[in-house]
Amino acid sequence: MTETKITLDPDDLPKKWYNILPDLPTPMPPPIDPEDGPSRLQNLPNIFSHEVLKQEGATDRFIAIPSEVRELYLQSGRPRALYRARRLEKKLNTPAKLYYKAEFYSPTGSHKVNTAIPQAYYAKKQGMERMTTETGAGQWGTALAYACSLVGMNLTVYWVRAVANWKQSRRNFMQLLGAKVFDSPSMRTTIGRTLLKENPHHVGSLGIAIAEAVQEATNDPKAVYSLGSVLNHVLLHQTIIGLETKKQMEIVDSYPDLVISCLGGGSNFGGLSIPFFRDRIKNGNATQFIATQSAVAPNLTGTYQYDYGDYAEQTPLLKMCSLGHRCKFEPIKADGLRYHAAAPIISALRHAGLVDTIQYPADETYVFERAKIFVQSEGFLPAPESAYSVTAAIDEAKKCKKTGEKKTILFNLSGHGFMDMQGYREKLNIGM
Amino acid sequence: MTETKITLDPDDLPKKWYNILPDLPTPMPPPIDPEDGPSRLQNLPNIFSHEVLKQEGATDRFIAIPSEVRELYLQSGRPRALYRARRLEKKLNTPAKLYYKAEFYSPTGSHKVNTAIPQAYYAKKQGMERMTTETGAGQWGTALAYACSLVGMNLTVYWVRAVANWKQSRRNFMQLLGAKVFDSPSMRTTIGRTLLKENPHHVGSLGIAIAEAVQEATNDPKAVYSLGSVLNHVLLHQTIIGLETKKQMEIVDSYPDLVISCLGGGSNFGGLSIPFFRDRIKNGNATQFIATQSAVAPNLTGTYQYDYGDYAEQTPLLKMCSLGHRCKFEPIKADGLRYHAAAPIISALRHAGLVDTIQYPADETYVFERAKIFVQSEGFLPAPESAYSVTAAIDEAKKCKKTGEKKTILFNLSGHGFMDMQGYREKLNIGM
Repeated sequence: MTETKITLDPDDLPKKWYNILPDLPTPMPPPIDPEDGPSRLQNLPNIFSHEVLKQEGATDRFIAIPSEVRELYLQSGRPRALYRARRLEKKLNTPAKLYYKAEFYSPTGSHKVNTAIPQAYYAKKQGMERMTTETGAGQWGTALAYACSLVGMNLTVYWVRAVANWKQSRRNFMQLLGAKVFDSPSMRTTIGRTLLKENPHHVGSLGIAIAEAVQEATNDPKAVYSLGSVLNHVLLHQTIIGLETKKQMEIVDSYPDLVISCLGGGSNFGGLSIPFFRDRIKNGNATQFIATQSAVAPNLTGTYQYDYGDYAEQTPLLKMCSLGHRCKFEPIKADGLRYHAAAPIISALRHAGLVDTIQYPADETYVFERAKIFVQSEGFLPAPESAYSVTAAIDEAKKCKKTGEKKTILFNLSGHGFMDMQGYREKLNIGM
Repeated sequence: MTETKITLDPDDLPKKWYNILPDLPTPMPPPIDPEDGPSRLQNLPNIFSHEVLKQEGATDRFIAIPSEVRELYLQSGRPRALYRARRLEKKLNTPAKLYYKAEFYSPTGSHKVNTAIPQAYYAKKQGMERMTTETGAGQWGTALAYACSLVGMNLTVYWVRAVANWKQSRRNFMQLLGAKVFDSPSMRTTIGRTLLKENPHHVGSLGIAIAEAVQEATNDPKAVYSLGSVLNHVLLHQTIIGLETKKQMEIVDSYPDLVISCLGGGSNFGGLSIPFFRDRIKNGNATQFIATQSAVAPNLTGTYQYDYGDYAEQTPLLKMCSLGHRCKFEPIKADGLRYHAAAPIISALRHAGLVDTIQYPADETYVFERAKIFVQSEGFLPAPESAYSVTAAIDEAKKCKKTGEKKTILFNLSGHGFMDMQGYREKLNIGM
């Protein structure tokens, strides 16, 4: 009976995060300053907490999780279950074994709490009073609002207007947790005012919202900026997902042939996959990794280049697979997948030939239809972004049916869709 | 570290439900027929599955949970964690110990899956093709839609119009799971048509929605009607909550002085409390039980009398604390607490002097304000109904602060509020 739901005891919660930096196939190209303008690197200590900056370039393979953070991880529901998708396997009549990690059983709806908690904890410990951040789909903003509420910090969230417009419940949840939420571009920052002057109905982008949050933190000595994806320390914190999952797969004596997750900035994909990348790099085993994306913003297919993380060029230049930091992307329901660049760590792995990628059409009907198959067999409601992971898992399982391969496929159900039903409604014409 | 989150292994999932009928202080008064009209009792086998009817009057103290149902319980996330609310205790500066059961970590949002799964399973096993039901808050309709999707049954849901009007996302979720959803009163049944003729904008009630669902099942030999609360078999299935919780409290060597839960029909209150009632009745210990209600429908303060379960008088007469089956109640955000009568089992315990009750004002601001305290300390978002449990727990903990009593207080977080943010928004003026 136990192979449907594979659990860990609270005592099995990992005590260390895994840092892949010392294990990358080639050393990570460092962040650099542009040739012109003020130094972005020198501004970093003004906007990030010291601990987080230290972790960003850390060379230790394992980094201890503070006991206060572990306690908050338990509070947030960790360790989370791993499910064997037996019902889905049966429906697809596939010889493949499908496993998914239940990150959606989160107090705010997604895996984002895994980095929100340590980031808020470190900022508080340093004596800061306030955090600023951006959010796209809203999952990150809610997660940081949650963490700030638990550790006792104020929070300002800049929310991409295209998404904020249709997610009132998520906005209210952030506000209930005590956060101040502003649509981005906003009138509160110079970059926001400039863009609104050009176009009063500007729909915004993650790069713009980041620029506004960074600007606000730069101007306030008691404020810390916090990013929910992309950076090394974010992926470090998220490895808790993959570390737990590895233990759980060991319990059932299994190991993935294929690891799948959606990728916007890379925190969810990296969180699940990085501990398995370690095995691949160290032992040369044959595990395949697939990052699922939207054709609207297929950043992994972009050039591996030095680029800014934000629209306003306030961040240092990072070596990333990027479509360009001023590239415009049309709104999609899976807004968490609408960012111009992939995390430097994932970009480096991609450049080393270790990451495959699939893009699904901008229309998204294909993706929501597969999410429906998942809902009706496994009973869990994926967030729009997680539906991209489900889609690849289903399609790969179908391939196995054709070829007869008994692949073990692992994917992450990074978030739930309770607050995103409009996506399902519109794309599947439900109740219309 | 482990006392924040107390977990059970999948192997610890109870193998039997607990049936309190043989242990009640006085024998349960049987359901009876009214003096006039056709026999309602004789119609029961036409509308309920055989197994459920058998369980309704069963005298065995323990009833085995079929292994298929246990497998689906695991699939739905059981066993669920018990949390010690240390952060809330600290915020309230109370000497009381607070524990809450995390039923809200449910694939559909509430504890209702616990009875939806066995009811759908038994109907399927009997060769039925379709189920009909009513729903108030929408949690029950979603849970049964989930269970029907997993076992492969069709489902029709009649949804109280006053609630259906403001919960489009929940409706879409039911539809995504394959259910057909109709606002009640509807034009599909004679009772619905009669009421709509009187008032085309009739807001409906649970009693009316039950009447429509019963009527549809009566007229279809391949259909089974399913009720989400009130009846003995429903409370039997829900004892899984309290049985798990007892094991979990034993792990931390604790036992409740006070058990609190909200009560509409009684499934959530009964589910948590019944295994503890057993100890009180058997051992005469001093545990207190508080059912929290809305002043709009304080059915536990009603007369202990034989009354119908539905508006249209199609059900047998049950001995219940009832306000009258045609009583009208104004809409509230916690619509799950808006039913005219309490479950016969809970009514009998109330009549025996074992159940206390508190009613909160129809306005609900008091309740949502306490839910906000809970959200900002524990980080979990209660459903409006569950906010009534949180409210009593907080108020009792505050009393302990005054008296210095170190009470152990247990309550159930029966559902989450991800799909009910409008309640928070309106009652707390969030983002307005």
